[in-house]
Amino acid sequence: MQHAKPLPAYLIQRFHGWRATSYQDNKAWFKRLAERGQHPRAMVISCCDSRVHVTSIFGADEGEFFIHRNVANLVPPYNPDGEYHGTSAAVEYAVRALKVAHVVVLGHSSCGGVKGCHDMCAGLAPELLEKSSFVGRWMDILRPGFERTADVADAEERVKAMEKQAVLISLENLMTFPFVRDAVENDHLTLHGLWTNTGEGELHQFDPAIGSFAAV
Amino acid sequence: MQHAKPLPAYLIQRFHGWRATSYQDNKAWFKRLAERGQHPRAMVISCCDSRVHVTSIFGADEGEFFIHRNVANLVPPYNPDGEYHGTSAAVEYAVRALKVAHVVVLGHSSCGGVKGCHDMCAGLAPELLEKSSFVGRWMDILRPGFERTADVADAEERVKAMEKQAVLISLENLMTFPFVRDAVENDHLTLHGLWTNTGEGELHQFDPAIGSFAAV
Amino acid sequence: MQHAKPLPAYLIQRFHGWRATSYQDNKAWFKRLAERGQHPRAMVISCCDSRVHVTSIFGADEGEFFIHRNVANLVPPYNPDGEYHGTSAAVEYAVRALKVAHVVVLGHSSCGGVKGCHDMCAGLAPELLEKSSFVGRWMDILRPGFERTADVADAEERVKAMEKQAVLISLENLMTFPFVRDAVENDHLTLHGLWTNTGEGELHQFDPAIGSFAAV
Amino acid sequence: MQHAKPLPAYLIQRFHGWRATSYQDNKAWFKRLAERGQHPRAMVISCCDSRVHVTSIFGADEGEFFIHRNVANLVPPYNPDGEYHGTSAAVEYAVRALKVAHVVVLGHSSCGGVKGCHDMCAGLAPELLEKSSFVGRWMDILRPGFERTADVADAEERVKAMEKQAVLISLENLMTFPFVRDAVENDHLTLHGLWTNTGEGELHQFDPAIGSFAAV
Repeated sequence: MQHAKPLPAYLIQRFHGWRATSYQDNKAWFKRLAERGQHPRAMVISCCDSRVHVTSIFGADEGEFFIHRNVANLVPPYNPDGEYHGTSAAVEYAVRALKVAHVVVLGHSSCGGVKGCHDMCAGLAPELLEKSSFVGRWMDILRPGFERTADVADAEERVKAMEKQAVLISLENLMTFPFVRDAVENDHLTLHGLWTNTGEGELHQFDPAIGSFAAV
Repeated sequence: MQHAKPLPAYLIQRFHGWRATSYQDNKAWFKRLAERGQHPRAMVISCCDSRVHVTSIFGADEGEFFIHRNVANLVPPYNPDGEYHGTSAAVEYAVRALKVAHVVVLGHSSCGGVKGCHDMCAGLAPELLEKSSFVGRWMDILRPGFERTADVADAEERVKAMEKQAVLISLENLMTFPFVRDAVENDHLTLHGLWTNTGEGELHQFDPAIGSFAAV
Repeated sequence: MQHAKPLPAYLIQRFHGWRATSYQDNKAWFKRLAERGQHPRAMVISCCDSRVHVTSIFGADEGEFFIHRNVANLVPPYNPDGEYHGTSAAVEYAVRALKVAHVVVLGHSSCGGVKGCHDMCAGLAPELLEKSSFVGRWMDILRPGFERTADVADAEERVKAMEKQAVLISLENLMTFPFVRDAVENDHLTLHGLWTNTGEGELHQFDPAIGSFAAV
Repeated sequence: MQHAKPLPAYLIQRFHGWRATSYQDNKAWFKRLAERGQHPRAMVISCCDSRVHVTSIFGADEGEFFIHRNVANLVPPYNPDGEYHGTSAAVEYAVRALKVAHVVVLGHSSCGGVKGCHDMCAGLAPELLEKSSFVGRWMDILRPGFERTADVADAEERVKAMEKQAVLISLENLMTFPFVRDAVENDHLTLHGLWTNTGEGELHQFDPAIGSFAAV
């Protein structure tokens, strides 16, 4: 792999700083995690967006959360066709191998992926319709979210509503996985739907009793 | 979505702690990131493993890294077949929309996904061979890494060698994406291969001059 | 400009070393910063003193901090009289054009400018009182810091107290700029007061709750 | 100063990392610099721009350069009127107190301040003409650079030419300071004019023999 380059010096400096402080102070825990394996309590599915740090907002230590991050925190429907399914593999590993007790889907404000899906469905982003657009095809998962928000006239409000649909559709798709449904029905797993407004530092969770999201 | 449950109280409590401290102190930055968008300098592809916190080891603030996490930090080869490809969508978004300057693939020690691939290829985990195994099919991406390490007799050593192959094969697969290759060849993107020993707090990077990984 | 001389050879040699290493490794980031502009998260106002390297102590990459350095890290009061005000121009550019989220004033130990102000106010440096002394007139900004430390008998201790006053007076003067005050009151900007003991490698920050500086 | 806020946690973490590594490894030098004072070899006047790290491109250690950074690396003409002159104070301190051997003015590509001056002079930025615009009034120093580049038709090329004029006009203004002129004429000080293209990693210096800048 002749294209690999050395890491920029400031990142190496920062790593050595971490090693001399956080690692040094917490070494026993790191060693135990390495020797006895991880036992995370929850899987979190969040966006790749650089503004969403699930370990920060939940004060998480190493070892607590098994975290999958993809564009727009989406889970596709169950489809065991023998092809590569990174998200489904992560869910399977978390639920069947690690036996996490919670799967949390965390959506967020100003999501570029959701905005792209809106624009694609609204006919404003033809390039995302091309077969070769990985982002476009991935965001197809959220197409039902565009349909369901048809009554939201304001485009900005509709994108925000679609960000929450991305959470709900992912939760629905999770339930199409037999091993997820079994675990949920046998009380071995609970699902949670969250949406965070990163600018305002707010966290909302889906409440099935009222059928919508409310601030925690 | 009637299956969603309220978040456990301790997580809500921690969130409020974060909101009263880190968010409060850094509110102006969060607001600016929300209003003016993210401009991350790098994409990091790391494992979902709960022991790997890239934001910690690199002292990263919100806004610095666009982070994709999947099982075993793998990138599949370029294959624009119109299906869902979460990893390829994340790479496309980072390189084409965000125009990150670096893509860093970060492997790690004691990777459960890599161990599974080893066992599957060695005939020790027949369940992973089934078409319906998402983890098995996802780990097929790493099969060439099993072949290339055939000369490593000790199984534990071979798994460790395969962890590094997971990084190298991902880097090779990244170069099969035309927009990645173009950006690399035009000096608009550099690729980096890292492997961290989480128990020992070590970071190794691939050095093409010597053809192997060396501690930073 | 017939007085310009060629750069000493050792600096040219060092530059070529940087170009062959750091620049080469980080070229994609430098190109992106050039093409897409800077988006620094913070402005830092520090002293010109050769012992204060803010990029080192905060492991900063190119693109992170907008840095203004002047004698004794001072900000004069708001005074839009149409004359040249280099510090005010830097603050205005950072807050209004770049919309930084933080302004950090970083004072330091053994500050020659602060020592000069002390000596001038104590009648020990008459040459600094002359109208033609740029350093003397610039240090006039810190005169209230001499008054406020009148109860510190030991001269060395008083100079150290004045170094911290230089930070506080600058923060107070920053708040006299209408656009700074607005941004602070609207939660788009936070101000921070730091003082570093360069010999001991210590960093102290001002805590308004206790009204003094404490080690981080 | 009730408006001061605590430093964001990631910066405190990075500082502790620096303290545990770079400071620890270089402690003797930091202590000596604190005890015996700074003896920098050169003053560098560069821009506040986050992309210009003079300590990086010249591999500078703590103690080597006395660095003044302002918008567009400008030096105003000598004007001892008793008002605050931050740049003039820095020059006076460097030349008279520290007796540096070199003053280096370092301009750079894509300078927002120079662009603003161009637009202001070309009638494209009326807001910069207002008396209350600190950036506008500061950039008045560069007005002669707009006149001198009148023959450059292309606006982008003219801005680049003005970036170099910012260096030359600063060098000319430096020579209006009697103590600078004396030191230069008595061979106690040399002046240097540089311009760096941050995206390309290039460094150019002014050569009076050819009357223009050439790559080092």
